[in-house]
Amino acid sequence: GAILARTGGGLGPFIDRTPGEVPLQFEPGSPAMLAAGEVRILVAEGAKPPAAIAGSEPDGAGRVVIETVWPELDGGRTPVKRVVGEAVEVWADIFSDGHDKIAAAILYRPEDEPEWRRAPLRFVDNDRWAGSFPLDRNARYVFTIEGWRDPFASWLHEIQAKQAAGVDVTLETIEGLQIAEEAAVQATGTGEAAALQGILDRLFAETKGSAAQLALLLDPHNAALIGRHAERVNLSRYDRELGVVADRLAARFSAWYEIFPRSMSHDPDRHGTFDDVIAHLPYVQGMGFDVLYFPPIHPIGFRNRKGKNNSLTAEPGDVGSVYAIGSEAGGHEAIHPDLGDFASFRRMVDAAHAHGLEIALDFAVQCSPDHPWIKQHPEWFEYRPDGTMKYAENPPKKYEDIYNVQFYGESKPALWYALRDAVLFWCRERVRIFRVDNPHTKPLPFWKWLIAEVNAAYPDALFLAEAFTRPKMMRALAKIGFQQSYTYFTWRDTKAELTEYMTELAHTSMGEYYRPNFFANTPDINPVYLQTSGPAGFIVRGTLAATLSSVYGIYNGFELCEAALYRKEEYFDSEKYAIRAWDFDRPGNIRDHITKLNRIRRDNPALWDFRNITFLNAYNDNILAYLRMTKERDNAVMVLVNLDPKNRQECTYEVPLWEFGIPDHGAIGVEDLLKGGSFSLNGKSHRIALDPVDRPVVIWRLVPPPAQAAP
Amino acid sequence: GAILARTGGGLGPFIDRTPGEVPLQFEPGSPAMLAAGEVRILVAEGAKPPAAIAGSEPDGAGRVVIETVWPELDGGRTPVKRVVGEAVEVWADIFSDGHDKIAAAILYRPEDEPEWRRAPLRFVDNDRWAGSFPLDRNARYVFTIEGWRDPFASWLHEIQAKQAAGVDVTLETIEGLQIAEEAAVQATGTGEAAALQGILDRLFAETKGSAAQLALLLDPHNAALIGRHAERVNLSRYDRELGVVADRLAARFSAWYEIFPRSMSHDPDRHGTFDDVIAHLPYVQGMGFDVLYFPPIHPIGFRNRKGKNNSLTAEPGDVGSVYAIGSEAGGHEAIHPDLGDFASFRRMVDAAHAHGLEIALDFAVQCSPDHPWIKQHPEWFEYRPDGTMKYAENPPKKYEDIYNVQFYGESKPALWYALRDAVLFWCRERVRIFRVDNPHTKPLPFWKWLIAEVNAAYPDALFLAEAFTRPKMMRALAKIGFQQSYTYFTWRDTKAELTEYMTELAHTSMGEYYRPNFFANTPDINPVYLQTSGPAGFIVRGTLAATLSSVYGIYNGFELCEAALYRKEEYFDSEKYAIRAWDFDRPGNIRDHITKLNRIRRDNPALWDFRNITFLNAYNDNILAYLRMTKERDNAVMVLVNLDPKNRQECTYEVPLWEFGIPDHGAIGVEDLLKGGSFSLNGKSHRIALDPVDRPVVIWRLVPPPAQAAP
Repeated sequence: GAILARTGGGLGPFIDRTPGEVPLQFEPGSPAMLAAGEVRILVAEGAKPPAAIAGSEPDGAGRVVIETVWPELDGGRTPVKRVVGEAVEVWADIFSDGHDKIAAAILYRPEDEPEWRRAPLRFVDNDRWAGSFPLDRNARYVFTIEGWRDPFASWLHEIQAKQAAGVDVTLETIEGLQIAEEAAVQATGTGEAAALQGILDRLFAETKGSAAQLALLLDPHNAALIGRHAERVNLSRYDRELGVVADRLAARFSAWYEIFPRSMSHDPDRHGTFDDVIAHLPYVQGMGFDVLYFPPIHPIGFRNRKGKNNSLTAEPGDVGSVYAIGSEAGGHEAIHPDLGDFASFRRMVDAAHAHGLEIALDFAVQCSPDHPWIKQHPEWFEYRPDGTMKYAENPPKKYEDIYNVQFYGESKPALWYALRDAVLFWCRERVRIFRVDNPHTKPLPFWKWLIAEVNAAYPDALFLAEAFTRPKMMRALAKIGFQQSYTYFTWRDTKAELTEYMTELAHTSMGEYYRPNFFANTPDINPVYLQTSGPAGFIVRGTLAATLSSVYGIYNGFELCEAALYRKEEYFDSEKYAIRAWDFDRPGNIRDHITKLNRIRRDNPALWDFRNITFLNAYNDNILAYLRMTKERDNAVMVLVNLDPKNRQECTYEVPLWEFGIPDHGAIGVEDLLKGGSFSLNGKSHRIALDPVDRPVVIWRLVPPPAQAAP
Repeated sequence: GAILARTGGGLGPFIDRTPGEVPLQFEPGSPAMLAAGEVRILVAEGAKPPAAIAGSEPDGAGRVVIETVWPELDGGRTPVKRVVGEAVEVWADIFSDGHDKIAAAILYRPEDEPEWRRAPLRFVDNDRWAGSFPLDRNARYVFTIEGWRDPFASWLHEIQAKQAAGVDVTLETIEGLQIAEEAAVQATGTGEAAALQGILDRLFAETKGSAAQLALLLDPHNAALIGRHAERVNLSRYDRELGVVADRLAARFSAWYEIFPRSMSHDPDRHGTFDDVIAHLPYVQGMGFDVLYFPPIHPIGFRNRKGKNNSLTAEPGDVGSVYAIGSEAGGHEAIHPDLGDFASFRRMVDAAHAHGLEIALDFAVQCSPDHPWIKQHPEWFEYRPDGTMKYAENPPKKYEDIYNVQFYGESKPALWYALRDAVLFWCRERVRIFRVDNPHTKPLPFWKWLIAEVNAAYPDALFLAEAFTRPKMMRALAKIGFQQSYTYFTWRDTKAELTEYMTELAHTSMGEYYRPNFFANTPDINPVYLQTSGPAGFIVRGTLAATLSSVYGIYNGFELCEAALYRKEEYFDSEKYAIRAWDFDRPGNIRDHITKLNRIRRDNPALWDFRNITFLNAYNDNILAYLRMTKERDNAVMVLVNLDPKNRQECTYEVPLWEFGIPDHGAIGVEDLLKGGSFSLNGKSHRIALDPVDRPVVIWRLVPPPAQAAP
């Protein structure tokens, strides 16, 4: 043997031959950096092939290629989220070698059922196939795809072409007969086997290859039957099973209202009870909310208890932070004694359901220094070298009244079971929505496991991730199971910010797994915009929250235009640390507007999904205009918002006639959903003024003329 | 238990309670289509949790998330292609819960070595980490990623912050000591274990928690050593191993020249031989080609032999189609007796190598009716019901002189082995490049297996897919292993077509796995453009082929501006069916231009990769302008082509000063690589005229002033 080498990255003439057997190997070094004259080995002549050659027996699987499958996220690791009753649209590139006809189907099933169901895929164009399958129950589904070579379809195609050309098809007819015989073998044991055998009997009664035999094969009923059972040649299965979570509609569409039950006494000196909450339900129902959400309702620790406005020392009578969970009265499965007992809790749940409200609870993993687990399970916590326990921190915030558990080491799996069982405990108490506090500071594998465990028992249980952190962690929490997520909405004020953010949420792959719950305020966030905006700003932000996303929420006080500031984004006398008495009738409230928003949301299916948003031209940077429309185009809502709460703004805007196939000079009907009344808009471009005092926002239902209703 | 249900998709008030235990289930139906009053089950109260609850024990793996890994194609199914000597750039999103520091590394190895090697990943921004690993031999590599929580880095960060704030760090010092002790345990058995033990001894000589102890821990040398061996807490491994094919440079950069050896006699009545090829080598070497490619050199069948111009009946003396492989003289492992014997073949290979040329052979799977396999292995072929064999078809073309094999059924695996062994046979004859005929009409699993088998023995063996078919099949062939692919280049003539196509090839994920071999013509394609373009058109298309892609080819006659048409895109008196005698010195040839192109390609590393193309502004639809530049920006070639072979075209164009950090009014040096000479261009915009007669194309090397050479 000899080596051939040449200069300049194997480009110049061969310059050397070295005797001796050598491995086939190249010198390291970036090709672009090889100097002229430098040597690179090209071919090792006569090197013996290694013994490995005959090693691999071909299995030949995958002759029909199935690739670019949609919906598939992260190479199949992340399930997409849908809602019961929807059809999952599926597509893939499917093809094989040569010119034979192929066929393909979706295989799908709820994860807890062993049998695949089948839905057809149909050829679209350019090797793309598409189909869909239904989600008929609240469960996790998996699907995959099968493709195969379809000999009967190939035969039909060939015979029709040859018949048209007047070619003799005796041999082809006999080939068709062979396919039919094979189909009868495949059909054995199915309901159609007898029918197929009947066709075969009639075929064999005719002369082999005759026109009569061909006519029998081509008879549409017979052909369909043969086609259904013809051998699936080179059957190929996509190598992954992809997940679809079918949630109930409330996961994607609901209006949340948050209260602190202990503030429901209307007396700052009396701790509110679940019976006080019952008395307040008509108020919440009256505004049209779906979900009533409570921060933690558990016993609160005494050691290191926080005082008002998060002060480090509590005064006598201070009730402490609801997030300092646990006292001698119990932990995550107990009720704060001052709120009531389980009898009153169940009474309250009954009453809430009777008012059309579902209860959502907070799930916060940390423990106060008095939590029973600290004595029962000291191994679940972290200690310093001096034997003291580590406080919880969420820099820059410090929670000295809170200890974090540790999830690995001696805590696993006992702590994991205990936390899961706490959630299951409240599920049994008919709570099926959990707002999870700071999930990004606990391990993702823990949440993935917990949510799967709970959903296996209660598929209707929903988890909202209260993570305000880096974008990829927020997405990861949604990917591993959280059905809803908090968002950056409270910090997106300008037209550019809102447009960009909503486009990311609705029109990137995030729309497949991340359901944005647009809270307009929270006990932790008194938004800077609202601190100085006055009521017009609350109308603006409430409207945006309720009509940009399909799931949104407010924390009580929002409808009262509460904006008293402690510092930064903290409310003054925050309910997190104190009992508040609210005057829910106080002047200047926007309860009527909130009520209208929730009514409009319920009446317009266009607002039941967040991915159907289209931003519209409105030629003023202070005016945001957008359309929400159902897939069926049978409901369309247009919103115009003056983002400037202080000044009248006007602009030329476009009404999206093109979405309904109406020409630019055509007309469309408009129902004013806030002010009432109807009118018609003629032509595409119009002028509008939005005044903070009189009309900061408009919400219109667009009603195209009947002919254009469903183009 | 009872069911709660409510109207309008679960949105209105609860309207019904049904006694009895029911499964948690929702009615089917698209939510947007539910009529008012329609019922949807919301919560099944009191339904018993299934026994499955306690079923799943958490494993807790994956606490450090590793996602969005690059390069990963098709969810990890498709390896990317690189060249030996390159570094593979890798990045990923890597993060974990909470605020602890993390670290990450690439694990990589040639597929045939068991031991992982490691390369560091470094934090970039927004949870993105990046690094690279080297490809130092011609092999298939795999890589994956590990991430872990780095307790020592977290400790360093915390202690530095607390030191800066003047906080007492006695406890933190003791915690650091504990990490160092753990690191010493981890390091046991490594070369650094003793050094770590030495540090520990010195630490224990100091007071626990003292400033002296802290100083020892923070000493940069000590800290680095501890950091390297600190426990990798929550070690997470990416769940897939991703492939990288490290080919030799010729896979991406080479110039091909195609001849029919039987036409090398210079006498249409005498069958050429390998010795005639030897005599022709100086001509091919003189033009600067790297690869000399022959259509099949095997014995040709006699039955149904084709005549000149693909006529169905051969005249006496007709030599037949080279693709009708096989006669009594042998099949795929035999040489056509009229070309010579193995001694002359080896002589020819020796001579080619001595002339800096590598031999590429055709691999065409079909068999003539006289191929020995038909008698030896009748089960490898398909038969009609009357016992006759099926002809090969490639609609609309018919190859009645050819039978196709069948790959499944009784053919597998024997046929697969026989075909693989035919390729290995020619590898042993020192052929390492195979142009594969019509691979898209044979099963993809067959090619995937064959190429892997051959590359296991001969990693330097390269396969070029001659597939002219639908885009997704062409891509699939590249994905499953073909190192090079034919393209649509011959049918892309206009500026818009060329720009769009080259952008797809270079700047989409295709650039990762699909190496476009731009043949300017082939024995099957006499391009329409060239049929009427005259020599200027050949200069244009040759220049485009040689400078748009890094691997290109011509079929002999191109340099002679041969364009005689039989019909459609068939050459008159095609060499596929007849012996031709070429006058390689005939007037009007563009041999000098081709020679210059190949010289320019070798001299300019910017032309060694095809993914580095940038199209430039040239304000005339007939003038295409582009830049090719190395990653290191140390070599830059600018090309301007007048696509109109009939008319002088002029335009204003931009010289890409911005790529070198030169302001719009700055100057750059230019070497004219075709005409010779140097000059300077001042400013960004210039005017040029390109005349088909005088100068249809320019190729310039851009030489920025030294200061801007590497910004």
